[in-house]
Parts: sequence; structure tokens; C-alpha cells
Amino acid sequence: MNDKPADPIRLLAEEYREMNGTHVQVLPGPPSALEFARLVHISRPVLIKRMQVPAVNLWTDKYLIKKLGTQTISVAVTPDGRADAIHKGPDGLDYFVEPLVETMSMENLLKQINSNDHGDIYYLQSQNGNLFSAGDEEGGTASEFDLLRSDVVSEIDWCSEALGRQPEAVNIWVGNSKSVTSIHSDPYENIYLVVRGEKRFTLIPPTDGWSLKERFYPHARFTRSTPSGKLEITPSPVDTPQVRWSSLPDHSLSESLPEEVKPIHITVRPGEAMYLPVGWWHHVEQSDETTIALNWWYDAESQGLQWAVLRTLREVERVSHANYNEN
Amino acid sequence: MNDKPADPIRLLAEEYREMNGTHVQVLPGPPSALEFARLVHISRPVLIKRMQVPAVNLWTDKYLIKKLGTQTISVAVTPDGRADAIHKGPDGLDYFVEPLVETMSMENLLKQINSNDHGDIYYLQSQNGNLFSAGDEEGGTASEFDLLRSDVVSEIDWCSEALGRQPEAVNIWVGNSKSVTSIHSDPYENIYLVVRGEKRFTLIPPTDGWSLKERFYPHARFTRSTPSGKLEITPSPVDTPQVRWSSLPDHSLSESLPEEVKPIHITVRPGEAMYLPVGWWHHVEQSDETTIALNWWYDAESQGLQWAVLRTLREVERVSHANYNEN
Ligand SMILES: O=C(O)CCC(=O)C(=O)O
Ligand SMILES: O=C(O)CCC(=O)C(=O)O
Repeated sequence: MNDKPADPIRLLAEEYREMNGTHVQVLPGPPSALEFARLVHISRPVLIKRMQVPAVNLWTDKYLIKKLGTQTISVAVTPDGRADAIHKGPDGLDYFVEPLVETMSMENLLKQINSNDHGDIYYLQSQNGNLFSAGDEEGGTASEFDLLRSDVVSEIDWCSEALGRQPEAVNIWVGNSKSVTSIHSDPYENIYLVVRGEKRFTLIPPTDGWSLKERFYPHARFTRSTPSGKLEITPSPVDTPQVRWSSLPDHSLSESLPEEVKPIHITVRPGEAMYLPVGWWHHVEQSDETTIALNWWYDAESQGLQWAVLRTLREVERVSHANYNEN
Repeated sequence: MNDKPADPIRLLAEEYREMNGTHVQVLPGPPSALEFARLVHISRPVLIKRMQVPAVNLWTDKYLIKKLGTQTISVAVTPDGRADAIHKGPDGLDYFVEPLVETMSMENLLKQINSNDHGDIYYLQSQNGNLFSAGDEEGGTASEFDLLRSDVVSEIDWCSEALGRQPEAVNIWVGNSKSVTSIHSDPYENIYLVVRGEKRFTLIPPTDGWSLKERFYPHARFTRSTPSGKLEITPSPVDTPQVRWSSLPDHSLSESLPEEVKPIHITVRPGEAMYLPVGWWHHVEQSDETTIALNWWYDAESQGLQWAVLRTLREVERVSHANYNEN
């Protein structure tokens, strides 16, 4: 036995790996509220088959174009499909860069996604509760996707019952393989349903967050000076808070992890949902064809051990690493 | 912001205290399985009123004496009511000392508990699944308390359903204020029901376990050389594993804790049960009158974050403290 105090963060990561491995439970159909409550306590990813949401059967291109008509929708635009990710700025420093947001019709978005020219990449990923959000009044406030609401459910009944709360936000995602979501974690319990195409998740448990080598990055945005101009990185005002983000390279994440960290790979297909528990790190890729997904974000339980552990894991990383660009 | 890495164990304790305080939820009656599943996820103590277990109405001295007749039962005997606790041995060193176990009738036990002479202290605390245990066959194997089984339930239905398992052990406890249980934690979810008298729990969350200053103690037992001889501490063979136990003084536990650690005090009365979550530290006192309790121990969920955190918290303490007697 070692006499030197071991690093508790690494010890926790080891204990977690030892007891849990990389197993993912697959359910043939939606769980009962009680079954799901047990899964929430375990807080590991679960793949759930045969989800009954009308969108899965309805949302062809033709249907969506007809239903949304001239309604404008907000779409993320980047030169390389990496919205909310680390990019090198004009000054050679690394920035956390948010996408440019442009509005267009669904018809135009689907055309852009499927175009074969090598121009900008479009990804509908507004993730602001674009379908339903907790702030909505009884009848619902106007949202860009009001016209699709009747094809979606505003909550996942067994999840709401298990957690004892309503979703905080329900989002629609439309893109294809040109867009990738870089690894991050959210303070939400997430039910992520695929409607069309495939989503491929690379998952890392909260206890292995240390291996992602988060650093602080100055904030920037993609902008263009004229409507058809080239996308440029514009650093935000210096008093904009820096953003803590993984410094591992997006395109070779799995190979960049320490040997002992074993990411979980899950592919989610149409009519399947993944339960992605609070605090789990996820990197998301999608199929070549147009890929459409829906997700329901629920506030996580803030009483008890889990929330305190998740906060501590991030806090420890925060104080133990200097600003990346200052290294 | 501090640049020096903070001790993650202390940081976790602070985060936990900040989010949870010392609040204890009180339920007017038993929860549904789903409600209880949510409480298990939160993993904080809960007081549950109006528990319907026949023993609560039936178990007078007279009834118990009649029902058990000449059946012998195993009782812990100590000079001062501190079974499973730290005592100074004949050589001046501190030992973790287990009680002497003697068998007697229920009639004799109740007489001993209520006797006013200053002799040895008797506490029925065998806690080996003396009423029901997971190893029991269909019909149940012989136990000292077979004759009381029909007054007890072999499981708490809402708890079994919430956890998706049967109890590991069901125990009966009979003593009074002369007996105290020193602070420790168990790897079980615990439903602890008072039948007669009062139990007073002093509780500390798993995250504050560091403040109990666990040390390793050599093992010993109370013995006597003749049936009516004086109790003596007999050290166990030197190859008996040492026992990790809190080094804080039992009789002034609350005053010995660091200022920031706020113990929770809960009194459990007849017909009330406490949910004592896995890993919570508990010190237990009881009323002057004969105090009878029942408890159901369920294996805790070993998948997920909680179990790994509980193990890590103990592991870190284990490697960071030297043997007490060697200090
Ligand atoms: O689908 C994606 O690209 C990202 C999804 C995601 O990050 C989330 O649902 O939290
Ligand atoms: O009632 C007592 O004296 C101790 C109870 C206890 O430690 C337990 O139920 O785990």
C-alpha cells in the first residue's frame, strides 16, 4: 500500500471504471417511470428503442418544407462545421468560437445541408428550447418551430414522472456529417431522440473529465462583413468571460485520451432515444444524409451527492489549470 | 481565486453543505415506490410517519415474554453500554472492542435492561438478520426470533420496489439509554423503525466523514473467565485485521466536530421510520424506558457515481492516516 495520499480525483475515476466498465444498457421500449427513476440514480447512458413520437414517421423534407413554408429559422454557420469549438484566431491564439447565426427557410436550410459545393456549413443547433421551453405560457409563446409542435411531445411522460419535473427545453437539431459537436457536458438530464439519419456519440463519464484537459479560452464569434463575405473570427470584447473548454483535438478525440480512459460509443438511429445523464461528456457526429434529432433537457437534481460531486470535479479542474494561452 | 490546488475532499464537503444544509424531509406517511426512488437518488435522511407494522401495537413486555417463552436469544454484554466501540485495553492501548455475547430468555433480557444495579449492560443488537435474512430458504431457516416474524414484515414494499431488490437483513434491537451505538457508517440503505421508546440519531453526511478522524485499531473482545466473573478486554490474535473506526470521543461527539460540520439530530418515535441512506455516519442513543426497534437493510446500488464516491472517500482516509497507536 502506498503511504503517500493518492490524488482523490484519479482514485475516484479508477473506482468508477472498476465498478462500471463501459457497459450500456439497451431497453427494447420505453421504461416505466419507476424503472427510469432507478436508471437516473445509476446515471449511466441507456439506449431506448421504439420511441413513439409522430415526427419519426412524418418528417420527410417535403413535409417539413410544406409545414414551415416561409417561416424563418435560426441556423449556425461555420466554415468547417465546428460550432462552439476551439479555433485559431487571426492573431494565432486559440479561441472558443461561437457560430454566426443566420435565418433562412427550412427549404433553404435543407438545400444548404445537401449542397455539394465547398462553402460554409449550416447546422440547425440553436438549443435554446426552440420547440418548447420552460418559460412558455399556457398556450406557448411564438417560436420558430411552432408549426412543428404538434408532431413532437412537450415532455417525455416517464421521464417527467421519474424526475418529478417538466423539461427545461425541447430542441430540434438538423444537420449532416459536415457538422460535429465538440466534447462538452451539460447540467441537464437529456433524452436525445433521432428522427432521421444517425447520431454517433462518444461518451466519457464525469469522473474522467480530468482527461479532457480543459483550459480557459477567450471568446470569439464567426462574423462576415458583407452578407456574402467570407467567415472571419472576431474576438469578443476583452471583458467577455473566458470559456472553459477541452483542449483535446476534436477530430482525433479518442486517440488523444489517456489509455485508461475508455470512451463509450453509441449510435442512435431513427425511433431510438439515448438517456444521456447529467455531467456526461459527449462528442457528437452524424450521418451523411440529413440527420434530424429532438432532445428534451430536464434540470438535474441539485440535492444530494451527485450534484456536489459534479461541481467539485469541475471546480478542481478550474483551480488546477492556468489559462491555456498564458501557458 | 486560489492558484494552489484545493483539497478535493474538503471542496466536496463544502459544495455538499452549501447545496444541502441540514434539512430533513418529514413525510406524513409512507411514500410511493416512485417517490421513494427519487429520495434514494437524493440520498438524504427522511423521517416517515405512520408506518403500519403490527409489532408497533403488539409488543408489550408481557406479549414478548409470552410469545418467546424459553427461546434463548443472543445479547451483547458490555461494562458500559458501548458495544463495537473504542476502549482502553489492559496494556493502555486503544482497542476496537466487540461485546461478549450471552444467551438468555426475553424475560431475562427485559429484567436486565430495567435493573437498577450498576452491573453489566445488556443490549440486543445482534444485527445479523436475526428476524429475516437474504439467505433464508422459502419457509425461512430457524432464527432466534422466528416466533416474532408474524408481527414484522419481511420487506418494506415501497422500498423493495424502488430499489428493485429484497432486503439483505431484517433486525430487532432491544435496549435502553444505558446502551449507545458509536458513530459508524454501513454499506446499506436502511429503513429504521421504532416500535417502543425513542431513538436519537446524530447523523453526518458521507462527505464529512473526514472529520471523524478514523484510525486503525487492534481488535479485542469483552470476555469473562467465569460465568459470573468481571468483564475483561481480551486482545484478539495479532493476525486479526485491524479495524478502522472514528477516533472522536463517543460521549462528546458533536462538540468534537470541526465547526463547519453540522450534525443532523433526528429523534425517531414509535410508528416512525427513518430512511438512513447508504454511507451516512450515525451515532445512536435511546430513551430510558425499554426501547425496541426494527430495521431493514438493503444492499445499495453499486453501479454509478455514488458507490464509487463512497469508496473513494473511505479509501482516501485510509491511505492518508497512520495507525492510531503508532502515532
Ligand atoms: O446533436 C448534437 O450535435 C449535440 C447534442 C448535444 O450536445 C446535447 O443534446 O446536449
Ligand atoms: O440502533 C442502534 O443502536 C444502531 C442502529 C444502527 O447502527 C443501524 O441500524 O445501522
